[in-house]
Amino acid sequence: MFSSHADYRKLEDRARRVLDPGVFDFYAGGSGDETTLAANEAAWGRISLRPHVLRDVSGVDIRTRVLGQELAGPVCVAPVGYQTLAHPEGELVTARGARRAGALLTVSSRSSRRIEDVAAEAGPWWFQAYVLRDRGLTRELVCRAAAAGATALTLTGDTPYLGRRRRDRDPGLIPDEIFRVNLGDGFDRALAEQASDVTYDDIAWLREVSGLPVVVKGVLRGDDARECAAAGASGVWVSNHGGRQLDGAVATAEALPEVAAAVGDLVEVYADGGVRTGVDVLRALALGARAVFVGRPVLWCLATGGEDGVAAGLAELSEGLAHAMGLAGVTVIAEITGGLCHPAAGRNNVEG
Amino acid sequence: MFSSHADYRKLEDRARRVLDPGVFDFYAGGSGDETTLAANEAAWGRISLRPHVLRDVSGVDIRTRVLGQELAGPVCVAPVGYQTLAHPEGELVTARGARRAGALLTVSSRSSRRIEDVAAEAGPWWFQAYVLRDRGLTRELVCRAAAAGATALTLTGDTPYLGRRRRDRDPGLIPDEIFRVNLGDGFDRALAEQASDVTYDDIAWLREVSGLPVVVKGVLRGDDARECAAAGASGVWVSNHGGRQLDGAVATAEALPEVAAAVGDLVEVYADGGVRTGVDVLRALALGARAVFVGRPVLWCLATGGEDGVAAGLAELSEGLAHAMGLAGVTVIAEITGGLCHPAAGRNNVEG
Amino acid sequence: MFSSHADYRKLEDRARRVLDPGVFDFYAGGSGDETTLAANEAAWGRISLRPHVLRDVSGVDIRTRVLGQELAGPVCVAPVGYQTLAHPEGELVTARGARRAGALLTVSSRSSRRIEDVAAEAGPWWFQAYVLRDRGLTRELVCRAAAAGATALTLTGDTPYLGRRRRDRDPGLIPDEIFRVNLGDGFDRALAEQASDVTYDDIAWLREVSGLPVVVKGVLRGDDARECAAAGASGVWVSNHGGRQLDGAVATAEALPEVAAAVGDLVEVYADGGVRTGVDVLRALALGARAVFVGRPVLWCLATGGEDGVAAGLAELSEGLAHAMGLAGVTVIAEITGGLCHPAAGRNNVEG
Amino acid sequence: MFSSHADYRKLEDRARRVLDPGVFDFYAGGSGDETTLAANEAAWGRISLRPHVLRDVSGVDIRTRVLGQELAGPVCVAPVGYQTLAHPEGELVTARGARRAGALLTVSSRSSRRIEDVAAEAGPWWFQAYVLRDRGLTRELVCRAAAAGATALTLTGDTPYLGRRRRDRDPGLIPDEIFRVNLGDGFDRALAEQASDVTYDDIAWLREVSGLPVVVKGVLRGDDARECAAAGASGVWVSNHGGRQLDGAVATAEALPEVAAAVGDLVEVYADGGVRTGVDVLRALALGARAVFVGRPVLWCLATGGEDGVAAGLAELSEGLAHAMGLAGVTVIAEITGGLCHPAAGRNNVEG
Repeated sequence: MFSSHADYRKLEDRARRVLDPGVFDFYAGGSGDETTLAANEAAWGRISLRPHVLRDVSGVDIRTRVLGQELAGPVCVAPVGYQTLAHPEGELVTARGARRAGALLTVSSRSSRRIEDVAAEAGPWWFQAYVLRDRGLTRELVCRAAAAGATALTLTGDTPYLGRRRRDRDPGLIPDEIFRVNLGDGFDRALAEQASDVTYDDIAWLREVSGLPVVVKGVLRGDDARECAAAGASGVWVSNHGGRQLDGAVATAEALPEVAAAVGDLVEVYADGGVRTGVDVLRALALGARAVFVGRPVLWCLATGGEDGVAAGLAELSEGLAHAMGLAGVTVIAEITGGLCHPAAGRNNVEG
Repeated sequence: MFSSHADYRKLEDRARRVLDPGVFDFYAGGSGDETTLAANEAAWGRISLRPHVLRDVSGVDIRTRVLGQELAGPVCVAPVGYQTLAHPEGELVTARGARRAGALLTVSSRSSRRIEDVAAEAGPWWFQAYVLRDRGLTRELVCRAAAAGATALTLTGDTPYLGRRRRDRDPGLIPDEIFRVNLGDGFDRALAEQASDVTYDDIAWLREVSGLPVVVKGVLRGDDARECAAAGASGVWVSNHGGRQLDGAVATAEALPEVAAAVGDLVEVYADGGVRTGVDVLRALALGARAVFVGRPVLWCLATGGEDGVAAGLAELSEGLAHAMGLAGVTVIAEITGGLCHPAAGRNNVEG
Repeated sequence: MFSSHADYRKLEDRARRVLDPGVFDFYAGGSGDETTLAANEAAWGRISLRPHVLRDVSGVDIRTRVLGQELAGPVCVAPVGYQTLAHPEGELVTARGARRAGALLTVSSRSSRRIEDVAAEAGPWWFQAYVLRDRGLTRELVCRAAAAGATALTLTGDTPYLGRRRRDRDPGLIPDEIFRVNLGDGFDRALAEQASDVTYDDIAWLREVSGLPVVVKGVLRGDDARECAAAGASGVWVSNHGGRQLDGAVATAEALPEVAAAVGDLVEVYADGGVRTGVDVLRALALGARAVFVGRPVLWCLATGGEDGVAAGLAELSEGLAHAMGLAGVTVIAEITGGLCHPAAGRNNVEG
Repeated sequence: MFSSHADYRKLEDRARRVLDPGVFDFYAGGSGDETTLAANEAAWGRISLRPHVLRDVSGVDIRTRVLGQELAGPVCVAPVGYQTLAHPEGELVTARGARRAGALLTVSSRSSRRIEDVAAEAGPWWFQAYVLRDRGLTRELVCRAAAAGATALTLTGDTPYLGRRRRDRDPGLIPDEIFRVNLGDGFDRALAEQASDVTYDDIAWLREVSGLPVVVKGVLRGDDARECAAAGASGVWVSNHGGRQLDGAVATAEALPEVAAAVGDLVEVYADGGVRTGVDVLRALALGARAVFVGRPVLWCLATGGEDGVAAGLAELSEGLAHAMGLAGVTVIAEITGGLCHPAAGRNNVEG
């Protein structure tokens, strides 16, 4: 399903046909002229690979450890909100598919199913947290997630407010009953919006109230990554929110080497954005990511194939990674280093 | 209206429909093959941004000071001549719209409304001066501007004569009565053409006769910028006249870093050319501009929406800037530095 | 026939018309999104040449020595499997055409005619070996090749298993009787598949069992090339398997300078991938190749013109090389050096 | 006529309509895939210009000296053979047009009018010489040229034989009576073909037999340029024969800076290839050329407008140069230096 970008385009087209146009555009779209959205996909393709020959690749093993947790592989599920728009059972189905594929799941703050219900279906999972205008609500949500078994929090750091997304035509796309699934009934909806005054100090606060390690999502700079580490984060997640926040922001494939170089072994580094094939996953690992998250591909699988679709899509990506590793002459994740990338890949790095 | 280049294209198309084709082409066109015209827009898009995460951006403030004058924001109106071709009341309407948006206005020497009448409608404004063949007339115009309240003169330095603009099909496009609005009735029209022997010495002369600070517009090189400073200019304005003079001239986004580096704090630096969105404004500020001027966008707003259009268009650009600043993690203009640009942006710099 | 890429496209189109669509796609296709397939051709075109003037080029001589063997020229035939799919007599015809053109031939392990029968028609030839799951079979094949007169073995190092080729629609394209031509009748087909545990140690083993020098095909990195030399290889062949293995792998024209620089005079260097004209051959020699192999062009000649087609196509490439050498001001192969390439050609090198 | 590439394309289209298709293609075509032909035009466009502001450009003077001879400007006519194919009076008309425009003319060895007759119509002119297989004939031709008033010889150094030009469909395009115009009647036509053993030694020989300074045409490398100087040349002419010899050869705009840097003040440097506008001429001068030669544009003028066309076309290019100089802030040829080019222009230089 994901052995080529051409196949991904077909999957996306199938999703376009089964989804309500407004819903499809809500998920598929980016901000502004969608230049960052397009740049994400294109940037991986510019990274040529330097495969090895004559290595014994009869046993390729993609297992890895993320925040100390052993995972079947580095392909993980990015947080996507309001999944009942795409499938009647929404996040429950994605959780089941991810569990079958052995993929780490991230559950969104904007889940349209109750956190506890999703958790009941999930394998290993993280909770994606916004710091909301109401800090009490924020605390409640992350504590519920911790209680339900989340092993880490992902603090989204790039969304003090939403980017301007031209394809979001319908302000009422997210009905109140979906928005409120994880809120109390009488809760003032505005207080559940993202706060615009979130800072590095909130890393320690979230860690303290939840007892969970915190990963900052949306990091695109080495200096910010180091600040996250200094403020107590356990990981940084290179992301531009799938091209949905600042249009013009650097592609994640271009930001990743700088971030990885900046933090070294201080904290773990992950990435998302435009990853469509196992070869793209290999590129991201080679540029310094320990795990790679996919959002839209999983959503299109959910919309077109339900649980089986999600499981198969994730398995395909993992198999594509293993296949590409063998062809590149590496057999375990630890052997995937920057030397697999042709130097042109580094030409846009800060250090380059 | 300007949150994306796609929206700008729509605005331009609306203007094309309401304007006489010859008038539209007069404003839209550039010189030669219009390569510089196209390069201006494209060059901003090549500058990837490096937003910060986890900054308190609950209060974004775009106020700035230009030549000591406090402005509501750095988005300003570039000089555009003969605006009655685009709207019956021409510059008067633009002045009202700019004042409502709190935007610094530049009034063209080629204004088709009397300088004093425009001034009466304007908020803060500068007068764009050509040194004309008749220096007496030049002196008269700049003195009238000073008397009418202009706070600075912009000396256009890139136009010893007009570029060759293929879309200017009709040599009689500018009727005598429009050309003469700010001249005496019996004045020899040829003497009101730009002089081709203008030099750095004219900076001091204009300053002396008008009593106003002088900004040189059209600067594309660091050495010229330093010469302007040495000759008494208070600012340099990076511009290629909207691609209307030397076709093949460097895009302003590519020239701006060199100019900014060359002058340091000696004089202020501004820029125009192909700026279409708040993100473009952010890029220009990051590359060293203190203020950013827009011409064609304002004209299309004038033609399609009159005073409301101008006010709304300028407000939209300012809001777009504030929005982009928040997403980039900066809250005041002073925090916008070159570090917001991905290094690839600098690859064409003289120093790079 | 090959004096331009346009002519090559016409030849390919003729082949498309005479071949079964599944067979055409099997040969024409690459893996994944076929980005490496496309990159191979494009990369040669980016290498500008710096011809000399005023050299006596009245006698251009393209003779060369490869592994000590004098050849009529550096244009050689790459291994292509199952050629009876393209012509009833398959490899026999290619062998005759190559012999007429004086071109070194590589006979594939996947030959659809018996090795000995092909050898009987061939001029100088090499045997392309996979190390198969059954090492005994591997030994038998290379010994048969040596006995039949092969002067070297080419060990394909980039194929622990096949790449994912979207155009290979029909898993039954290669019928059992074609697959088995060089196997015993009762042989378990699976054991004749490539082994995925082939290592540098197999170089010495193949050399020992066959008594022939070994060339490693598929090398794309300088470090691997040095390892091949250290392990006893006599040559390294820069190849990405015609874009059929790891999609995303670097184009051969981009990898060649690194490999050539890494091995210096230790071992010989060859290249294939996207070479379509005599000028492309000249570029490959300038970047460090001693010989250049062509696969698809020969196959299209076979399909459209049989023996005459193959002989004419190879002759045309050699004449194109000689023609280009004269225009570049060089008369013998030894004069072709990196200085013939414009520096931009090196901009993607590891050392660059 | 030449103030933009768009205008040039229109001129070319008019020529296509009035000329026999085979004749048009003979002139318009290049060798191989015509990549060098296309690269020539494109390369000038990549050179951004850095105009000065505030210079007194009321008097722009394009006069220059070439080999000690004062010329009205640096725009010159490149040698084009067999011009009676394009106009009944052929070279006579071109000579008259060039004289009216004050442009230095180069008369081709392949002139279809007698050298002496062309000379009678010409202003300042050079003779383009091939060293032919018959050295006696070569000597005779250059001596006739010297006697008829040529002030220099241009030795074409890039044509030991013709490139492979796919558009040259008709081997009989040049009839015997045209080919023989400057030969004796009984002369063996093959002996009048270019020799392929021409070397730097022929520079001194031509100089000696003709008594004229010798310029080598076709130089694309700094080392060759220095060898030309050492061998007694008075100038080197950067050219790839309009993309008609080695396809893949570097664009002249990319080779020019290297050649100019290599020879310094030893010899003069000229350039041709894809120059279409006055801005292109300015770029070539900025990159180090003392004079710029145009071929196809003049031929299209000849075909579509005869003497008036040639005169007007050349005047337009010179006026375009003067116009561009003024807009760039320079008033005499000597002020045109490499600093007018944006650094990106130098990114492909050998030294860069």
